[in-house]
Parts: sequence; structure tokens; C-alpha cells
Amino acid sequence: MIEELRGIIGPAGVHTSPEARMVYECDAYTIAKGRADVVVIPTRSEQVAPVIRVLAREKIPFVPRGAGTGLAGGVYVAQRGVLLVLSRLKQILELNPAEAYAVVEPGVVNLHLTRAAEPYGYCYAPDPSSQSACTIGGNVANNSGGPHTLKSGVTTNHVLGLEVVLPDGEVVTVAGSCEDAPGYDLRGLLVGSEGTLGVVIKIFVRLTRIQPAWKTLLAVFPSFESATRGVSAIISAGVVPAALELMDHLIISAVEQSFKIGLPLDAGAVLLIELDGLAAGLERTGERVAELCRQEGATEVRVARDAAERAALWSGRKKAAAAIGRLSPSYCTQDVVIPRSRLPEMAVKIEALAKEHGLRIANLLHAGDGNLHPLTLFDERVPEQMERMIAVNHEIVRRTIELGGSVTGEHGIGIEKVEFMRQQFSEDDLEIMDRVKRLFDPELRSNPCKVLPTGGTCMEVIPKKQAAA
Amino acid sequence: MIEELRGIIGPAGVHTSPEARMVYECDAYTIAKGRADVVVIPTRSEQVAPVIRVLAREKIPFVPRGAGTGLAGGVYVAQRGVLLVLSRLKQILELNPAEAYAVVEPGVVNLHLTRAAEPYGYCYAPDPSSQSACTIGGNVANNSGGPHTLKSGVTTNHVLGLEVVLPDGEVVTVAGSCEDAPGYDLRGLLVGSEGTLGVVIKIFVRLTRIQPAWKTLLAVFPSFESATRGVSAIISAGVVPAALELMDHLIISAVEQSFKIGLPLDAGAVLLIELDGLAAGLERTGERVAELCRQEGATEVRVARDAAERAALWSGRKKAAAAIGRLSPSYCTQDVVIPRSRLPEMAVKIEALAKEHGLRIANLLHAGDGNLHPLTLFDERVPEQMERMIAVNHEIVRRTIELGGSVTGEHGIGIEKVEFMRQQFSEDDLEIMDRVKRLFDPELRSNPCKVLPTGGTCMEVIPKKQAAA
Repeated sequence: MIEELRGIIGPAGVHTSPEARMVYECDAYTIAKGRADVVVIPTRSEQVAPVIRVLAREKIPFVPRGAGTGLAGGVYVAQRGVLLVLSRLKQILELNPAEAYAVVEPGVVNLHLTRAAEPYGYCYAPDPSSQSACTIGGNVANNSGGPHTLKSGVTTNHVLGLEVVLPDGEVVTVAGSCEDAPGYDLRGLLVGSEGTLGVVIKIFVRLTRIQPAWKTLLAVFPSFESATRGVSAIISAGVVPAALELMDHLIISAVEQSFKIGLPLDAGAVLLIELDGLAAGLERTGERVAELCRQEGATEVRVARDAAERAALWSGRKKAAAAIGRLSPSYCTQDVVIPRSRLPEMAVKIEALAKEHGLRIANLLHAGDGNLHPLTLFDERVPEQMERMIAVNHEIVRRTIELGGSVTGEHGIGIEKVEFMRQQFSEDDLEIMDRVKRLFDPELRSNPCKVLPTGGTCMEVIPKKQAAA
Repeated sequence: MIEELRGIIGPAGVHTSPEARMVYECDAYTIAKGRADVVVIPTRSEQVAPVIRVLAREKIPFVPRGAGTGLAGGVYVAQRGVLLVLSRLKQILELNPAEAYAVVEPGVVNLHLTRAAEPYGYCYAPDPSSQSACTIGGNVANNSGGPHTLKSGVTTNHVLGLEVVLPDGEVVTVAGSCEDAPGYDLRGLLVGSEGTLGVVIKIFVRLTRIQPAWKTLLAVFPSFESATRGVSAIISAGVVPAALELMDHLIISAVEQSFKIGLPLDAGAVLLIELDGLAAGLERTGERVAELCRQEGATEVRVARDAAERAALWSGRKKAAAAIGRLSPSYCTQDVVIPRSRLPEMAVKIEALAKEHGLRIANLLHAGDGNLHPLTLFDERVPEQMERMIAVNHEIVRRTIELGGSVTGEHGIGIEKVEFMRQQFSEDDLEIMDRVKRLFDPELRSNPCKVLPTGGTCMEVIPKKQAAA
């Protein structure tokens, strides 16, 4: 079979050495590690269907992978088989500013598409913090969001159509470059399915007009909780910022140590607020937002004076997770969504949990969406700290479900959250999802053990830490 | 069984008389008429699942129906059975301005939700022209759009979650009031499935902030084609109006005869352009749009001076289809979407078709979306005119597919467009949709013969006229 795959891809794209397999043994969720038997790296999208047909015949499982920036172990190889690395399928096949769409291969890096569209006044709106590395194929798999989700929505709102290789090797096209495709919305079903229904080889995406002007504000609050009240005040006033991000004092300190962008080290938390639209309206809206923040206790509201100051603030925000390494040998990123009006009480809850369990929790929020990323700091070499970290995350998830929230925001379910699905959904709800999975992938070979708690042999592959949480 | 249904619903909600069955024999696509054996009209949403369970046991097909304003025969009773009228399930169960969502029953009239949300500064954004009559359940079934789709998107962009009774009577909840629900996006799959996968009994919708200011312009063009060039110019300039509608001279004349709102009777076509946002920016954008229209040949650009003038323009637009009765004993509404840059050539094509076949074609467009509604005027009492009308529509659909467009925009597939699905999709693409259909509805009892060309006994029920087209 290896020879057959080499015949399709060429010898340089099929790897079986331990070194090659180790390179791809995990994504950014480094807790779950698993090596594929074979790593296959196609260079042309037409190679994918023949590869999948060979795997179908041999009944071998496979995992599609982009840049590996995922945070939930979505590309963890759970049951050996073949890892299909799609990062070299990086052609922008069409860029059509007149119709405001583009057609890309799955390995195109998110930011590269925006760079290509910018000369025409367009961008690709979903902007995960990892956008300079993550691929659009990976974004489709995870239905990724980003700081601008608040105004622009998540990936599914920007995907017009897909070309997909189903697990049996059949190629289907769902929707296309036009709006309002007829028939069932299989496009929507496939976006966010994390490679468990097939392999996407072509993506039709909507391009978004770059707004003519922007205003970026930094509001400084005395506490995490007061900053969340600022968020509620802005949203309740009906202002829709392009982005509304929250960083607490631990994040501020990590970012400042790493990048020195001038964040206030004595603040409890800051809100990074971006407004965009026509220049004429921004001044007044900016003043209104500043006033709302002051009413909720902000001690200072700064305004970025130029594009360089704006870029520095955003660079600090987008690299914040990376900077956390300064604070702690290990950390666990949580990703939950709650109703935005409940943010203040969740802030109080998280601070209480940190105190109770004697661990520091850094908080990074896409606050406008109610999407929290509490990062629990611990030392994985100390088992007892690991247990406390698990207890903290367990409590955060439990409280999220009580508040009517979601156990995963933008990072996907992957292997990390698969058991939480039982808490979020009823047996009936899960069963209908399971039926959809088996319709596309009756032999459960496409990214096995992800998204749905399928039980059976998958139980063994869920990393012990998560099974406990 | 009738007695059993009466036990669930109460005797007043189960009808078998010829009169009751005739009332519901068609929707606004009056060509397709079919009477149910029984008309069931629940008054509480909890009654729906028990009814469906009885029908499942007895293997009886059913058709869910809202207000019957559909234009593609989506609620046409193709294979007898039970018609489930949901228009009395009209409670707004929750209105939550703080979190910007509402929970409604399927029979809530579209405009009633907006009226209820307005005091809080919110609206329900999708606004079909029939919004004062059509139900949100019907909107979900058809993934309805409206004049404001250009900026706000279609129904699926505003539906957060659904409670659905599957054809076997099982009740499942997909997603909910929170953004970013985990798992497969069954919500997206169900929106637009036209009742062929089950019956929606509860809908979680997003509410949209009402914009603080608006500017409504009417640009007068010498011809249909020059008006479409105006559309391309506005879109290419990167302006995103809240709405961008086109009415040609036949529509103008019908609207003026009916409503006397002061449209220019000598115009070839008009564009109705609405801008919204902050007041400060609108003046300049309005001037820019007017200038772009003049460059493409507009002889005049009027601006609505107050809310009353704006309301009159919109009322004319929204009642335009109804006014067409003034011009002709019969007309056939087409609903196709093409890339917006191809609108001018489609305008020329349609005018040529009208000349060639000796029929008048009135044109009403959600122009900003590339969504055309050419209305072919004819007299159904003259068989030879009917044939020419069919030929015209056949040509419009053929040209649409050539241009990479879609054979249905916002009106759904229903029974009218079901055969066109074969032109739009490959056998493989249709087969995967068919598999999804059979997963939810293995006995093909939920709104039979709609959306997918299932063949077999359904072939007989497609109205002859459409089968020919």
C-alpha cells in the first residue's frame, strides 16, 4: 500500500520514518500525542481522492491536518493509520473582487488570503489569533472565530461552498461561489465537523470589504469583574464594536514582559475595543464607549493615535497566549461561551476558584461574544497541581452548562472536549449527530474518536487527564 | 385515527370536511393544488410530537404549513395524508434584549416579532416582502431572504437553535440561545430543508440592533440595463447598502396604478437604495451613491425627506408583486440568483426573450444580491401563451446555470423547482442529499416529493406545467 501511495503522491510525500511521524504527533494541545503509521503530504489537491480511495479499500483510518495550531487535539492520531498533511495545498485558485469571493485550497494560510485581497480593498474576515500560521482548511474544520467574530461572525458565515472527498473517496461539491445555494445546507454541516465527515480540498469563501476607518481604544479597569461589566454596558447600549477583547492582569503582565507595548501593569483588566466604519461616525461612538466604560469604573481610556499604536495593541493581544509561558511552566487553556450578561458573575466565580484551589488563572476573553479563555497555570511535574487544575476546569465547565452556555467556543471539540458532549447534549441529541456521522463515514475511519463520544475503543485513547476532567 | 388525533388536539383542531381541506389546498404558488385527507391545527406546540407519533405508527405522510405565502408550492400536499397547520402556534416564548435573542413558536408572524422587539431597539432582520403575513417557521423552512439580505444575510444567519420533531416523533434540540454551539451544525442543515426532515416547533433567533439613522434614495434610470450597471457600480465601490432593490418600468406602472407613491412612469427602471448606520456618515455615502448612479446614466436621484416618504417607497416595493395583477390575468414569478457583475447581460437577455416570445416580462430584483424575479405576464386561458411563458422561464433558468448562478434564491424549491435540481447538481451531489433525507425520514413521509427529485410516485405529482419547464 505504501508503494501505491508513493505512486499517487511521489516518493517525497510519503513518510514512515519515526522522525517524520514524530514531527506530526500532536497539535498545540500537546497533552494528546499519537503517531500515525504513515504521513502523507500531497502537493496537488487531485491527489487526495485517490489516496482516500486506497485507504477506503484497505479500511485504514485517516486524520486530515492543516498547520497543527489547533488547541483541542483535533488532529491527534487516535487510532494509528494515515495522517494526511494538507499544508502544501496552498494555492489561491481564484480571487474575484468584483463578486467578493475567493477559491482556495485547504492549506492556504489565513493571513495570506487577506494579504492577497488587500490590494483590492478586501479581507478574509475570520481572524483567529493564530492567523499568521493557521490554514483556512483548519478554520473550516473548527468553524474558527477570532477577535472580529463579534461583528463579522465565525468561519461558517464566510464559507460559500466546499469541495469534499468523502471517506469512501467520492468527491462532492456543496454549494459554490454564489449566495443562496439550493438544496440541503451540507456546506453548513461540514463546516465545524473537524474532518470527521471527509476531507475538504477546495473552499469558496466570501471576501469582506475593509472598513474605511477604525478607532482602537484601551479601557483600563481596576478588576476583572468591573471590566466584564464594561462589556455588558457596551453591548446593552447597542454598540457593535468590530472587536471587544478582555485581558486580565496576569495576561497584561505576561504580554508586557514579552512585548513591552505599554499596557498598565497595575490594572485589574483592560478592554481592547475596536470600532470601525465611516470615519465621520467613529468619533462620537468612541466617546460614548469611553463614557460607558468610565461609568463601570474604568480609570482611564486610551485611544491608539496611529496605525503603529493600533498594530502594537493587536500584536500584544494576538500573541498573548504565547506570552503565558513567561508566567508558568504549564497552563491549560479553557474555551467556553456563556451569555454575555452573565460575564460578571463568571468573573467572580473564576476568581473564587483560583483562590479555593490555590492556582493562578489568567483570563483572555473574546468578551463581546461571551467567549472566555481562562488559562489555569500549573506545573505538570507536580501531579497534585495537575489534579487541582483539572478540578478548576471541571468547575468552569459545570458552571458554563448551568448558565446555558457552550462547552466549546472556537477551538473545537477535538479529543479534549469529546466527553463534555455528554454533559451538553441529551442522548437523543447525540444519537442524531451519530447517525449523521455514520451516514458520511459508516466505518468510522475519518478522524476517529473526535467530536462525538463514540465509546468503545475510543475510550482508551482519550488522554487520562481529560477523561478525569 | 381521526379520533386519536382529536384526543390530542381537541375536536376543533381536526378537520376532514371538503371545505376545510379546500381552504388549504395550495399556497401562493396556485398552480399546484392538492387536498390533504385531514387538516390538523394544533394550538400548543406540545401537541405536535404526539400527532407525529400517531402518523409514524400509521405510516401516513404529512406536510407542515405556516401562513401559506410560499411561492414554490412548498406546502402543496403531493401524496394526500395530513396537513399540519402551525399558524396558531404564535407565542413569543421569550424576548431577551440583554442577550439579543428571542425564542418563538413557528407560527409567529415575522413582523410581529420585530414589533415586539422594537421598544427595546431591536428588530428581527430577515424581512421577506410578505413579512406582515408569513411566519418565522415558514421562513426557517425556506431560509427566506428579503430586501435587507444584502447587508443582514438570510434566515440561517439569524437562527441560533431549533427544537424539532423528527418524522418518527422524536423531539431533538439543535443548538440554542448561545452562539457557537458545539457538535455538527444540524441547525444549519434543518434551516431551508422545507419541512422534509421534520417539523420545527421552537425557534431561537438572534435579534438585530436597529440602526440609529437611515437614508433612502430612489435613482431613476432610462433602462433596465443601465440600472443594473448602477448596481454593479455601487457594489464594486465597496458600499454595502442595507438594501438595493430594482423595479423596472412594468413594475413601476403597476405600483403607481395601485398605490400612487409618485414613482416616475417614464423611467426604464428605478433603484431603491437604503443606507443605514450612524447619521454622521450617511450624508457623504449618500452623495457618493448618487454620483455613481449618475455616472451609469441615472437622470435623477431623489432622497426620501422623512419617515413617511421612506415608508411609502418601501410599501410600494413590498406590495409590488401584488400590484402585478393590474397588468395581466396571470403571471409566473421566477426566482434565480446570478453573480452580480453579470446582471447587465442578464437584463439584456431577458429583454431579448420578451421580444422573441412576444410576452411582457416585469422585473423586480433584490439587485444587490444578484437575485432576480422576472415575472412573465401571460393569460393562462390561452394555452399557446402558457407554452411561451414556459419557454421564457426555461431559457432564464438555463442562462442562470451557465452563469454559475442558482435556480432558486429565497423562495425555496418546493414542488416548482424540484426538477431543476438535476440541472444544478450532479448525480453524486444529489445522492448525498438524498442520503441525508433518508437518514431523517427513511419512509419519505415528511413533506413528500419536495426539494429532491426522488422520482417514482412523485413524478406523477409534479404539476404538468412545471415538468414541461
